[in-house]
Amino acid sequence: GILERLDAGEIVIGDGGFVFALEKRGYVKAGPWTPEATVEHPEAVRQLHREFLRAGSNVLQTFTFYASEDKLENRGNYVAEKISCHKVNEAACDIAREVANEGDALVAGGVSQTPSYLSCKDKTEVKAAFQKQLEVFMKKNVDFLIAEYFEHVEEAVWAVEVLKESGKPVAATMCIGPEGDMHGVPPGQCAVQLVKAGASIVGVNCHFDPETSVETVRLMKEGLQAAKLKAHLMCQPLAFHTPDCGKQGFIDLPEFPFGLEPRIATRWDIQKYARKAYDIGIRFIGGCCGFEPYHIRAIAEELAPERGFLPEASEKHGNWGDNLSMHTKPWVRARARKEYWENLKPASGRPYCPCMSKPDGWGVTKGAKELMQQKEATTEQQLKELFQKKK
Amino acid sequence: GILERLDAGEIVIGDGGFVFALEKRGYVKAGPWTPEATVEHPEAVRQLHREFLRAGSNVLQTFTFYASEDKLENRGNYVAEKISCHKVNEAACDIAREVANEGDALVAGGVSQTPSYLSCKDKTEVKAAFQKQLEVFMKKNVDFLIAEYFEHVEEAVWAVEVLKESGKPVAATMCIGPEGDMHGVPPGQCAVQLVKAGASIVGVNCHFDPETSVETVRLMKEGLQAAKLKAHLMCQPLAFHTPDCGKQGFIDLPEFPFGLEPRIATRWDIQKYARKAYDIGIRFIGGCCGFEPYHIRAIAEELAPERGFLPEASEKHGNWGDNLSMHTKPWVRARARKEYWENLKPASGRPYCPCMSKPDGWGVTKGAKELMQQKEATTEQQLKELFQKKK
Amino acid sequence: GILERLDAGEIVIGDGGFVFALEKRGYVKAGPWTPEATVEHPEAVRQLHREFLRAGSNVLQTFTFYASEDKLENRGNYVAEKISCHKVNEAACDIAREVANEGDALVAGGVSQTPSYLSCKDKTEVKAAFQKQLEVFMKKNVDFLIAEYFEHVEEAVWAVEVLKESGKPVAATMCIGPEGDMHGVPPGQCAVQLVKAGASIVGVNCHFDPETSVETVRLMKEGLQAAKLKAHLMCQPLAFHTPDCGKQGFIDLPEFPFGLEPRIATRWDIQKYARKAYDIGIRFIGGCCGFEPYHIRAIAEELAPERGFLPEASEKHGNWGDNLSMHTKPWVRARARKEYWENLKPASGRPYCPCMSKPDGWGVTKGAKELMQQKEATTEQQLKELFQKKK
Amino acid sequence: GILERLDAGEIVIGDGGFVFALEKRGYVKAGPWTPEATVEHPEAVRQLHREFLRAGSNVLQTFTFYASEDKLENRGNYVAEKISCHKVNEAACDIAREVANEGDALVAGGVSQTPSYLSCKDKTEVKAAFQKQLEVFMKKNVDFLIAEYFEHVEEAVWAVEVLKESGKPVAATMCIGPEGDMHGVPPGQCAVQLVKAGASIVGVNCHFDPETSVETVRLMKEGLQAAKLKAHLMCQPLAFHTPDCGKQGFIDLPEFPFGLEPRIATRWDIQKYARKAYDIGIRFIGGCCGFEPYHIRAIAEELAPERGFLPEASEKHGNWGDNLSMHTKPWVRARARKEYWENLKPASGRPYCPCMSKPDGWGVTKGAKELMQQKEATTEQQLKELFQKKK
Repeated sequence: GILERLDAGEIVIGDGGFVFALEKRGYVKAGPWTPEATVEHPEAVRQLHREFLRAGSNVLQTFTFYASEDKLENRGNYVAEKISCHKVNEAACDIAREVANEGDALVAGGVSQTPSYLSCKDKTEVKAAFQKQLEVFMKKNVDFLIAEYFEHVEEAVWAVEVLKESGKPVAATMCIGPEGDMHGVPPGQCAVQLVKAGASIVGVNCHFDPETSVETVRLMKEGLQAAKLKAHLMCQPLAFHTPDCGKQGFIDLPEFPFGLEPRIATRWDIQKYARKAYDIGIRFIGGCCGFEPYHIRAIAEELAPERGFLPEASEKHGNWGDNLSMHTKPWVRARARKEYWENLKPASGRPYCPCMSKPDGWGVTKGAKELMQQKEATTEQQLKELFQKKK
Repeated sequence: GILERLDAGEIVIGDGGFVFALEKRGYVKAGPWTPEATVEHPEAVRQLHREFLRAGSNVLQTFTFYASEDKLENRGNYVAEKISCHKVNEAACDIAREVANEGDALVAGGVSQTPSYLSCKDKTEVKAAFQKQLEVFMKKNVDFLIAEYFEHVEEAVWAVEVLKESGKPVAATMCIGPEGDMHGVPPGQCAVQLVKAGASIVGVNCHFDPETSVETVRLMKEGLQAAKLKAHLMCQPLAFHTPDCGKQGFIDLPEFPFGLEPRIATRWDIQKYARKAYDIGIRFIGGCCGFEPYHIRAIAEELAPERGFLPEASEKHGNWGDNLSMHTKPWVRARARKEYWENLKPASGRPYCPCMSKPDGWGVTKGAKELMQQKEATTEQQLKELFQKKK
Repeated sequence: GILERLDAGEIVIGDGGFVFALEKRGYVKAGPWTPEATVEHPEAVRQLHREFLRAGSNVLQTFTFYASEDKLENRGNYVAEKISCHKVNEAACDIAREVANEGDALVAGGVSQTPSYLSCKDKTEVKAAFQKQLEVFMKKNVDFLIAEYFEHVEEAVWAVEVLKESGKPVAATMCIGPEGDMHGVPPGQCAVQLVKAGASIVGVNCHFDPETSVETVRLMKEGLQAAKLKAHLMCQPLAFHTPDCGKQGFIDLPEFPFGLEPRIATRWDIQKYARKAYDIGIRFIGGCCGFEPYHIRAIAEELAPERGFLPEASEKHGNWGDNLSMHTKPWVRARARKEYWENLKPASGRPYCPCMSKPDGWGVTKGAKELMQQKEATTEQQLKELFQKKK
Repeated sequence: GILERLDAGEIVIGDGGFVFALEKRGYVKAGPWTPEATVEHPEAVRQLHREFLRAGSNVLQTFTFYASEDKLENRGNYVAEKISCHKVNEAACDIAREVANEGDALVAGGVSQTPSYLSCKDKTEVKAAFQKQLEVFMKKNVDFLIAEYFEHVEEAVWAVEVLKESGKPVAATMCIGPEGDMHGVPPGQCAVQLVKAGASIVGVNCHFDPETSVETVRLMKEGLQAAKLKAHLMCQPLAFHTPDCGKQGFIDLPEFPFGLEPRIATRWDIQKYARKAYDIGIRFIGGCCGFEPYHIRAIAEELAPERGFLPEASEKHGNWGDNLSMHTKPWVRARARKEYWENLKPASGRPYCPCMSKPDGWGVTKGAKELMQQKEATTEQQLKELFQKKK
């Protein structure tokens, strides 16, 4: 089980981001980001799971992101009617389990923030949504549960409360940065609330780059220590460099979601991330949007000395570029060493582009920021009204 | 057949780069870049073919890059002995055909430059290598043949001569830029020689970014016109921005091959490329290293008005971002339009990195450049000596 | 007098940076940065004062930066022995007064942080140094006094205490950013201490770019408001963009002092600064290192609507580029408007250079930062020892 | 005399750019760029001459740029009527001579391209304009003459023919890049025509950065060698980095003239330029727009080993930063060496700005380029018509 591994001091490697990877492969639509591919193209989902497993993932998350009923219903125009929410979730569990059995991986069922919370904040309704997804996870007997991608700790706590009732271990990650959740709750307090609600593992996922995310988890750790609470730490950041994003993360960057390429992390960036995460005590280390199989392998390779073994996919990868040592050109051979890749400052090849962007949104002006932080303002209708008022 | 399509004025869409895509997925080793995955992990190769097909590829190239006998032998230390060159090539053909039959695609068998040419320049020996690969292609009955990735037109001509004897249509692409081949033969003359040798389709692949590559094909076209020769034009560039590379292309860039991420083209960059390529008369439009399925889809979407249809994978993609029109945040909804993505100058998120690099290698100094252009200098031993002398 | 003007709500425009401007003109040596030019080349100092006056400066600061006795003595190897500290200070006063009389400007005598404070922290000794300089200012009857460029509020308070005894109005600016002084005293508290010590005008100068400096003064204002104290606000920042510098400002940037060119602010950057400074209530608005006469003119032009007049030098300058409206090329004429220059993102023309630097120094590592903040560590000898230890 | 010095193999150092330097100081208006300051503010012009002399200039050019009668007349709205063209030119000569006498410098009278040529191309009329200016230079007995800033070699030849009649040595520089003059005459042919017309010194000035300009002079040298002609070579480039400008130079860059700051060359960039210029055989080495006194000093310092002496202003400057060797902070002391500054890639501090710009103008499209090259199109009226037609 996940807790046995973590309690024993093992490093657990997560997987990467399915929606972004499968969008590039042609199976997920950006915007809705829903996982109907589990039914429509199971072979594509299976192959991606397999690549992450091969790259070193110890946990395969079911591809059930945004797979709640209302979300899928809303997207009716492009998802064939016949595909029920139930089928999508079940297929996701089956595929993950099938691939997990090819190796030594755990299957984690995941829930994430709901439109219901954003629009009405009714506790019963929101919890019912999580409950529905949980039923599939229980039927399919996943190994543990992850409540992930929450912008508000209040909703995350509700999710943990629901999942906790299953008796399975629960991990909880928020998509926040060092400034805390959208209501202004700082990371340390978020962590405390999640652990008190029953989470055994806490941390962050998505929305921010590795460096920022590790810092956020560090703040969570400080919060837990101050409250004399114990929990395992987890980090699954973006594989995009986002030093310029505001409180709400990469969605507000002008490049989201179709111009993020120049921000993609190299494998060496990810090795640095893995080391930093390890150094501050994070033991569940994975990725989110932008993480491709080779990024996960980079985590496994960086931490191979601690773990004592390499992932299967490393048979096709040298240590810090040493597979270049046989190259015909001497100057390419000269790149077959750690110092080279560690210190390289890679050029963008885009001299007409800047290095940083200003995030879009009301986030920029103080007053609007406050409005945004009132959850009441984020229903579609209210957003429209606010936007009008602002102009 | 390929020529029927092109002669009828159809646009033919190629596929993307297998070695780079499969390296990131964990099945190909950078450095050697050999395709033993066709035997070791056929499901991974099959899945990638399928994604390109779904993205709009009309041609599936057998994954036989660097699959010549000597090349594979040299890499013995990591390829299981039991895998013969023959098996690798046969499996590649079988997989490509299997997927091609799932749609309306042609299978192309490919040969590329040989170590033999670089080390000894013996015509008979080099031609024998091509002949050996051709036998597999004939046995497996591919639809046509591509001689690709040649730095010297002399060797490319030999390849075309061998392939031509098969009676199947032959395409030939060189991995050169506007400065021409490594012996200094300009693109126009390269094209003339290739057509005279029997190629029905000529162009470039790999080594340079789309903009540079289209310009090189334009020079080829000028050369053919001046010589009053006719041939179809073809372009399969990198999906990396490389305005800063020298005559020998992206291999000399310090970021090659493990730090190229910030140079990756967006889908919009590729739409611009597709339009430009079309405008100058190129009708076989595809990609090479760096091209992922979504890049190929971008070609198909840009040219959908001319072709009258969209590829299958476009069911998961809006036109110029219109899938964002339902987003909760008004400023993200505001990105659901062509003008936005067309004009975006995407930031790198890397403020400590430059925009351009100076290529490595002797290429920088005049004298060395000349030496490099003498093929005699490029055997392993001679390179070493030259390098010593230079120091 | 200065206070009459400020009390009446007038905007007072300061001057620019003498040491940097005269270094480029060949009269000041970078490193020591001492003002012996007042004796050696009075015509050069006079001309620069005149240019600032013409650009709109209402205050001419005597060029007495680093003109304390010990400082000048230490630099004996390049300053002709015959030039006494006294002479340098007197000449500075005479030149400033001479030019001030050509217009409507006040003369301010200035003192700045002393080596004595950094090496021994003896209150009496430090105050004596200020006293010595004050004597010259009194003899030459400057209009008011400025204690500027202090990294430690403790020393700044001592300076204000000495200057205050003169009966002349005292302004005090620290070279700090939002993180506060080197002992960790935040800007708000610095301001409170300075006002309590007798300063009528407080703010910041040097070390940080305009944006950062305005933010620091805003924090000072908040501190004063919280303490229910009143004072005029003043800002004299760098004319260099330094978003990447650490707590100790631009000196730690790798480009300091001979590679700062790409960071130089445009006149439009300065107009934005002037507007921002004005908007938060700063009324003494000037510049420090990097400010050339045209930067000061930009302040005067931006605030011309509020002040009702333009500086003399504006007879050689159009409003927001309108002097281009007669250009032969239509596309250059098209630049003769505010929207153009306001929105221009000027390119560096340096594609091989990054946008940001990592500051040098121990500042990077936590432990070292703490050491640095212990003033005891900053004598020459102790620095050396610490540096050795660190290695 | 200038020829005696050059014939003897001496390096002659030119001066920097007056219009840009005096614009920043508040005495020249951008757009018209006329030199009425010689009469209005002689002390400012004198001081700048003096700084260049002190920095090492061996030649002081009279500040007579754009001082032809029609040019000054056109600008009547801001130049006091009483200032005649004659007075401006005479004052320029007097000031230059006065300062030259303070050292060991020559005075050069300069003429540049005329509006007459651009609008009517009448040889007699154009030559008459040069003749008028020459009369002042003869009366004031300058040491030699420079015909500079010509975009068309035809007009430059006419200028040389006029100046040559004076019997004084004539230098001629064009403001062109490697692509040649606006009629498409390549640099080599330009040089040949100028020497045949009587110029003893040929080269380029303005419009392009040092690197590009040195390359252009190299092409001139090749042209002269091929024609078996002999002349001294001269180079006075911009002190701005302009790798991105088109055929017509920096005027078409979007940053011209008020946003060029991030492009300003460092002193180290200029030392590299001086070395390169020297290495290809240029012996008259100076600067144009953007060159401040410290840039000229950088030339003199770089070539001090060859010349055997340093300029006066070097008493305030260390060799490659060695004046930092006494700095309190060890990491700043560590910058006191050549390797540091030579290899520094200075950051712009502007993460929201790109590295390169696309030049404005019709220059971008082929057709327009051709139109531009027809001189007939460049009168005000015709430009307007063309611009309309284009839209």
